[in-house]
Amino acid sequence: MLPGIGVFGTGDIVQALVPFLRTKGFCVEAIWGRTLDAAERVASELNVKFYTNKVDDVLLRKGVDLVFIICQPDLHAQIAVKALGIGKHVLCDRPAGLCQLEVLKMVHAAQYYPTLISVISHGLRFLPAFIHMKRKITDGYVGKVNVCDIRVQCGSMIGSHFDWMCSQLMGGGVLTMIGSHIIDIISFVVGQRAVRVHGMMRTFTKGTDKINGIRWIDSDDFCTFQMILDKGACVTATLNTHIQGSFTQEIIICGTKGRLVVRGSSLFGCQSNSLKEELLYEDTQSPTTNFINNSLSKARLNSLLPNAYIQGLFRMVTALKDAFDSGESEQGWLKEPVSSAATFEDGQYVQAVIDAIKLSSSSRQWEQVMLAHEESELNPLMARLNLPNINQSSLEALSRASTSRVQVPKKGGSVESHLLWGFGSNKH
Amino acid sequence: MLPGIGVFGTGDIVQALVPFLRTKGFCVEAIWGRTLDAAERVASELNVKFYTNKVDDVLLRKGVDLVFIICQPDLHAQIAVKALGIGKHVLCDRPAGLCQLEVLKMVHAAQYYPTLISVISHGLRFLPAFIHMKRKITDGYVGKVNVCDIRVQCGSMIGSHFDWMCSQLMGGGVLTMIGSHIIDIISFVVGQRAVRVHGMMRTFTKGTDKINGIRWIDSDDFCTFQMILDKGACVTATLNTHIQGSFTQEIIICGTKGRLVVRGSSLFGCQSNSLKEELLYEDTQSPTTNFINNSLSKARLNSLLPNAYIQGLFRMVTALKDAFDSGESEQGWLKEPVSSAATFEDGQYVQAVIDAIKLSSSSRQWEQVMLAHEESELNPLMARLNLPNINQSSLEALSRASTSRVQVPKKGGSVESHLLWGFGSNKH
Repeated sequence: MLPGIGVFGTGDIVQALVPFLRTKGFCVEAIWGRTLDAAERVASELNVKFYTNKVDDVLLRKGVDLVFIICQPDLHAQIAVKALGIGKHVLCDRPAGLCQLEVLKMVHAAQYYPTLISVISHGLRFLPAFIHMKRKITDGYVGKVNVCDIRVQCGSMIGSHFDWMCSQLMGGGVLTMIGSHIIDIISFVVGQRAVRVHGMMRTFTKGTDKINGIRWIDSDDFCTFQMILDKGACVTATLNTHIQGSFTQEIIICGTKGRLVVRGSSLFGCQSNSLKEELLYEDTQSPTTNFINNSLSKARLNSLLPNAYIQGLFRMVTALKDAFDSGESEQGWLKEPVSSAATFEDGQYVQAVIDAIKLSSSSRQWEQVMLAHEESELNPLMARLNLPNINQSSLEALSRASTSRVQVPKKGGSVESHLLWGFGSNKH
Repeated sequence: MLPGIGVFGTGDIVQALVPFLRTKGFCVEAIWGRTLDAAERVASELNVKFYTNKVDDVLLRKGVDLVFIICQPDLHAQIAVKALGIGKHVLCDRPAGLCQLEVLKMVHAAQYYPTLISVISHGLRFLPAFIHMKRKITDGYVGKVNVCDIRVQCGSMIGSHFDWMCSQLMGGGVLTMIGSHIIDIISFVVGQRAVRVHGMMRTFTKGTDKINGIRWIDSDDFCTFQMILDKGACVTATLNTHIQGSFTQEIIICGTKGRLVVRGSSLFGCQSNSLKEELLYEDTQSPTTNFINNSLSKARLNSLLPNAYIQGLFRMVTALKDAFDSGESEQGWLKEPVSSAATFEDGQYVQAVIDAIKLSSSSRQWEQVMLAHEESELNPLMARLNLPNINQSSLEALSRASTSRVQVPKKGGSVESHLLWGFGSNKH
């Protein structure tokens, strides 16, 4: 039987995801929103019986065995760690957390409960174009990989209100939103990981017509970064959110023998002995695409979640269904259908690269990517990242500030602070 | 009357240029080649009466009043300085020289003879798409410029023999060949210059089927660089010569109010109030394009000089003709038609940026762009660039080595070394 699902988050993607989960046979048992108002509104729109603004109420709810954490990044780690701790499977949106320290806690939790499924929503891994690309690279189509050139162009990711997307400290910005997917998919298809990185991040649009008060946008709306991978390949990526009205993504992998290119969701290739690019996989109208097009306003999704990404996420959900369909054995759930999904360890790697790119952008030099096994190893990094008080009062204040446009019930306002990294004594 | 022309160089571009010069009414009086064989071969193919491998013989030749310096970059500066010194107009190919020190000597020579025309062959400035782009930016179409995103993709620039293109020390590589044009055109259209740069250069193809002896390729075949301009705009450029079989160039300028894009030789634009890109200038089949297509093998030119670049160069030649057509006045030649051409000062700026990008690629940090007025200011830079013996024995040896595949007449072998920066005493 498929597990019941608890969803954390009320954004546009949730409104796309819940109907899709249902078509796959999942039952959505509960929805959590940052405010009771938001939770109630979305629950009513999506016809979900239970809604709340209390994390525990979802996690402890009978019938919820799989949680989708698709809320603001500063809450990801704490919810994921608690969920695993009480035996729930977890799918966590990117970025896994705010910094490597947070994601390392998630990794440790996942390692402690190995029978549970714990994955990051890097759905591009499930897109056929990238699956074929990975296979071609393994088969030697491009030879030794030398250069990866990535360009993502889209419109502004800032909504009509000040929220976490506007704040770098809360995980907003094009590097965490788009760059995380890019960093993950490159390591996935090329089979190499970054050892050194360089980055330049900028916030050109610090205010909009609607966001022009005392709070300004400080999350990056432009980012270019370079990575040296562990077998010598060079990666350069440019993420530009100043291209209003379109979303284009091109990922080019050049090697000694040829090149492979994913444009949108289609794969092209060209080997050295030929001068003409051939179409290797064409993205046709899949049932998933049709579902997206039929049930959702394209414009609404494009802003934060372009077609290729949501397609990937939906295919990942389908793989999850296959995993659960097989039922529970002595070794736990059959993980094979989601074996190619990004694990929390992959999420930690992606976060380590993001941390290093942020460091590089301020230090103006190349930075090593440091992957920690123990939390204490991260102290120097945390100090350099200038995030000494993360998860503490400053961030809490920020979180509250960011939602101050909606009326927060007094009781609910302090819920998350009690829930940090473990069950608090108070049971609202 | 149009001045007679002396051409330095025997490459593919010369074979394209000479017929075009003739259609414009110029008379090509002399051709210089690195070896007498090469000079003779090209002179005979192009039906030029005088050929030589001695620089002075062209410069001192009666009837030569304008020299086109389109040979290997390590000879540019010395020929240009001498040419101006005896009152000849100069068009010099990019890169102007091997390092800023060389180009500064050229700048000083040009300043000393202000009535002479002295320009660098950055022909993109003469392409209508970029002229319109510059005008639109000045008119406020994009608002304040924030981001410039440039991507150039082409096949390998390495020929069938080891030559200066294979050697970084002799001015080869994608940064000097393509990057120089990009650096120039950005400063031209945006009206801002780089103050700090970051670069990553790589040579992935160190040998080919035909270049596999004791000498290896060390010029960059991949380069990504970032620049901070003096009014805060960010530039990122990726130059990739691993895309066999095509040449694509896209230059995107994003500002607070919209964006402009030059793809190939056409201009597109989109302002914030619209979501759809509009075609602002379409590259139609101009007489120049037709000339190129009719008279030359496209494949041959594409390798080193893509269509947009040669079109620009030809338009620049047309402007030169207009300048000379007006005749000589008391103030010298009418420079107005070539007033938008890149001066030697512009060439010095481009070279300063190239030097800083090279430094950055080895220092792995951002580097300031330093523009010198006196040669002595450049001592620290030269030491860091690791070019202490430039123009001296090591480079000479390299030059000779690079041409050792063709038979060099004994007498000719030492000509250039006598001609360094002034007329030597011996008159071969």
